[in-house]
Amino acid sequence: MASSLCFLPFLLFVVSSLVSSSSSSSSSSSTATDVLHGGEEAEAVGHDLHREYLRDEAASRLNELGKVSDVNGYLERTFLSPASVRAANVIRQWMEDAGLRTWVDIMGNVHGRVDGINASAPALLMGSHLDTVVDAGKFDGALGIISAISALKVLKVTEKLEKLKHPVEVIAFSDEEGVRFQSTFLGSAAIAGILPAATLNISDKSGRTLQEVLNDNTVGATEDNFIKLKYQPESVWGYVEVHIEQGPVLESAGIPLGVVKGIAGQTRLKVTVSGSQGHAGTVPMSMRRDPMAAAAELIVLLESICKHPQEFLSYDDDCSSVESLFGSLVCTVGEISLWPSASNVIPGQVTFTIDLRAMDDVGREAVLYELSARMYNICDRRSVSCVIERKHDANAVNCDSELSLQLQSAALTAFRKMAGNVDVDVPKLMSGAGHDAMAMAHLTKMGMLFVRCRGGISHSPAEHVLDDDIWAAGLAVLAFLENHV
Amino acid sequence: MASSLCFLPFLLFVVSSLVSSSSSSSSSSSTATDVLHGGEEAEAVGHDLHREYLRDEAASRLNELGKVSDVNGYLERTFLSPASVRAANVIRQWMEDAGLRTWVDIMGNVHGRVDGINASAPALLMGSHLDTVVDAGKFDGALGIISAISALKVLKVTEKLEKLKHPVEVIAFSDEEGVRFQSTFLGSAAIAGILPAATLNISDKSGRTLQEVLNDNTVGATEDNFIKLKYQPESVWGYVEVHIEQGPVLESAGIPLGVVKGIAGQTRLKVTVSGSQGHAGTVPMSMRRDPMAAAAELIVLLESICKHPQEFLSYDDDCSSVESLFGSLVCTVGEISLWPSASNVIPGQVTFTIDLRAMDDVGREAVLYELSARMYNICDRRSVSCVIERKHDANAVNCDSELSLQLQSAALTAFRKMAGNVDVDVPKLMSGAGHDAMAMAHLTKMGMLFVRCRGGISHSPAEHVLDDDIWAAGLAVLAFLENHV
Repeated sequence: MASSLCFLPFLLFVVSSLVSSSSSSSSSSSTATDVLHGGEEAEAVGHDLHREYLRDEAASRLNELGKVSDVNGYLERTFLSPASVRAANVIRQWMEDAGLRTWVDIMGNVHGRVDGINASAPALLMGSHLDTVVDAGKFDGALGIISAISALKVLKVTEKLEKLKHPVEVIAFSDEEGVRFQSTFLGSAAIAGILPAATLNISDKSGRTLQEVLNDNTVGATEDNFIKLKYQPESVWGYVEVHIEQGPVLESAGIPLGVVKGIAGQTRLKVTVSGSQGHAGTVPMSMRRDPMAAAAELIVLLESICKHPQEFLSYDDDCSSVESLFGSLVCTVGEISLWPSASNVIPGQVTFTIDLRAMDDVGREAVLYELSARMYNICDRRSVSCVIERKHDANAVNCDSELSLQLQSAALTAFRKMAGNVDVDVPKLMSGAGHDAMAMAHLTKMGMLFVRCRGGISHSPAEHVLDDDIWAAGLAVLAFLENHV
Repeated sequence: MASSLCFLPFLLFVVSSLVSSSSSSSSSSSTATDVLHGGEEAEAVGHDLHREYLRDEAASRLNELGKVSDVNGYLERTFLSPASVRAANVIRQWMEDAGLRTWVDIMGNVHGRVDGINASAPALLMGSHLDTVVDAGKFDGALGIISAISALKVLKVTEKLEKLKHPVEVIAFSDEEGVRFQSTFLGSAAIAGILPAATLNISDKSGRTLQEVLNDNTVGATEDNFIKLKYQPESVWGYVEVHIEQGPVLESAGIPLGVVKGIAGQTRLKVTVSGSQGHAGTVPMSMRRDPMAAAAELIVLLESICKHPQEFLSYDDDCSSVESLFGSLVCTVGEISLWPSASNVIPGQVTFTIDLRAMDDVGREAVLYELSARMYNICDRRSVSCVIERKHDANAVNCDSELSLQLQSAALTAFRKMAGNVDVDVPKLMSGAGHDAMAMAHLTKMGMLFVRCRGGISHSPAEHVLDDDIWAAGLAVLAFLENHV
């Protein structure tokens, strides 16, 4: 993200004012940077700002949707829960209000479509997910649905909706977080055609299968109908998703929007270190085979490799994959436990997880190879046993270059509408988190726009997006639709 | 423990045969080292071996006592539980069988005393605890009670009991492990006079106070009677305790018995590292404040300091305290937890315990000072916050030099009785674990004898002491009584 640093001086005050308030309409002087941060003065600078729909109504709808929860006191809306069904109805009304023809499929995905001038042309799909994690924020998923609907509503109001050269379809996917069935992307994977029919047999915590749950909500959740959810690739032009960044890069760069280069590949490991359990007071240091001390050394190694892979991997100078690895590699130990867990007992066993992600699959494999070899060496030297299990693997997914350029141009158009003729280099980011776009990439070319979120915080009620950044996102989607669809 | 290494060549086969069987009577050739390991041939070499009482009956009683449990399937006998009361009765019978006058005090301690030729002379106290941990072994505590009773029984049988110059009193302490009230040494601390009267008000898990529990079992558990439990120092000559080592030093040295130099001082710390919680995929390595990576570095540091304190502490060449630290310092991280504990979330907080013990209190403080300073430095460098809380401190207790020499001589006598005129340097060990002797040291001079246990394992049903090592312990106690009391 080094290239983002050039924005910093230009937008410094945007960053500094970011935490104080989501409204900047009280500013009395109007400058370009003021306006990029938003405010009423923007009307005087840009054109076609559609603040009423793209900022105020969108923010109000995000608040409204954020209250549709299965529990009192916090936001929880899992796959096909009562609150999810209520949320789907609300979203469907907003789609109709934007001039879209709507339906809900057997998987609970909400669709809103406009045909434009050629109903049989390949369609642009847009959207994100309507489900949430437990104790969620109100922007994760919802922002992508609402910014698409808002932009289409502006096209309806400006009478451009029916003149679109391609059909446009907004989809609010029923499951991305995977809280209920521990299986992510149920909605988008079904549409992309990558969800095995056997998925109908997986069970939630109460023991009810996916098929049973689907049949409660719809008629005909048969395997046949499930397979028919898949869109034909030739009927689709592309997929575009707006999503909060869920990380701190845009905030630290001081830019409201960024374009996603791709979604990182991921490997999840479980490491079990076994040593010799003993009394904390009676076993001399020289006679210990302490798995906790070993695990600590392994975690320090992991961090070193992921911070400075170039110091650990051998590669020739032409190897672009190792080069591309440097900026995107992230490693996390998010769980650790030991046995028997008493302050006066040397543990007998320590188990921890490693979550390792990178944009480059070859580079990720190279890191895993080097990491494992060095981990086993450390364990051998310490006379403890190490078992490294590979629990999950997903390859990286690249965003489509052309779509990304179009989204970059659309973001710049949005910035200039809001802030005058500014010269902003729209950041290109990796997405470390998975998104519906990851599933949709199996069906069609895919592009994503990230929206700055406060502190990079997500999956938390503290998740926050400035009203003006919602506006910027809506303007970018509008510009994309007007210029490229 | 470096001085123990000289025993290794001499007794190598003892170590190698140790794990195969607790009986060695099938050996057909008799050598000095054979016999030190025990066996029927011993009768041919030594004199006054009293195998019947010191080996067979003692081992049988340890087995019998090991079955007195509050639960089926494993051994659990906590302070004044029904099984503890049954165990106390059994022990009392064995004491009477050895010619001792017995009583149980209001704290549940079982006493057995013989006056010898002068009832008013200061008494030698001997013993250990009758309570156990949960899922305990049968030697921890019990061995010290039974080896004392067995040796006195031999004196009775050989008609030497009434000729002892000092009264000898065996005490089976009611609580050392502290499982029920989370307060160790209830029995011995009351007799040593270091248990505050306020202890009567502490509660067990069921909410019953110590006083209520005491009153169930005895009459008159008043504060006055509680204070009267304290022995007058002038009435006591010393305290001797036999205990399993609970560590691997004697086993690796190949010697059945060792003399304890002292009981290590202990500090227990709780370390809380707080960083910045985030999504495992979206926060670049360079922007992380990861408390788990920091904790790993702190634990690696801890291990380095405790393994090689001389590389971390500055001291002048004459500083004996730092020198004495090198062999005894042990550090353990026995508990660790993190929040929120999800594999795909960078933790916000990590908490772990440090158990640090050393024979030298000044040295322990020096290590703590250096450790804390370096830990804070690491946390500062990583921009995470560290809180180091001192949860518990106990100073080291030294064993009495004269008593230790007498016990060393008694152990050598035992070895020679069993193995002929062998030249064994009886090891001197630190005790990293706490014992009743730690409380009794507040009342009188104190000495301890350690007995080898298989694999250094304790607090486990796998805890094991060879029958021949039980015998060696009994012979050593007998020799001590015959030569010094």
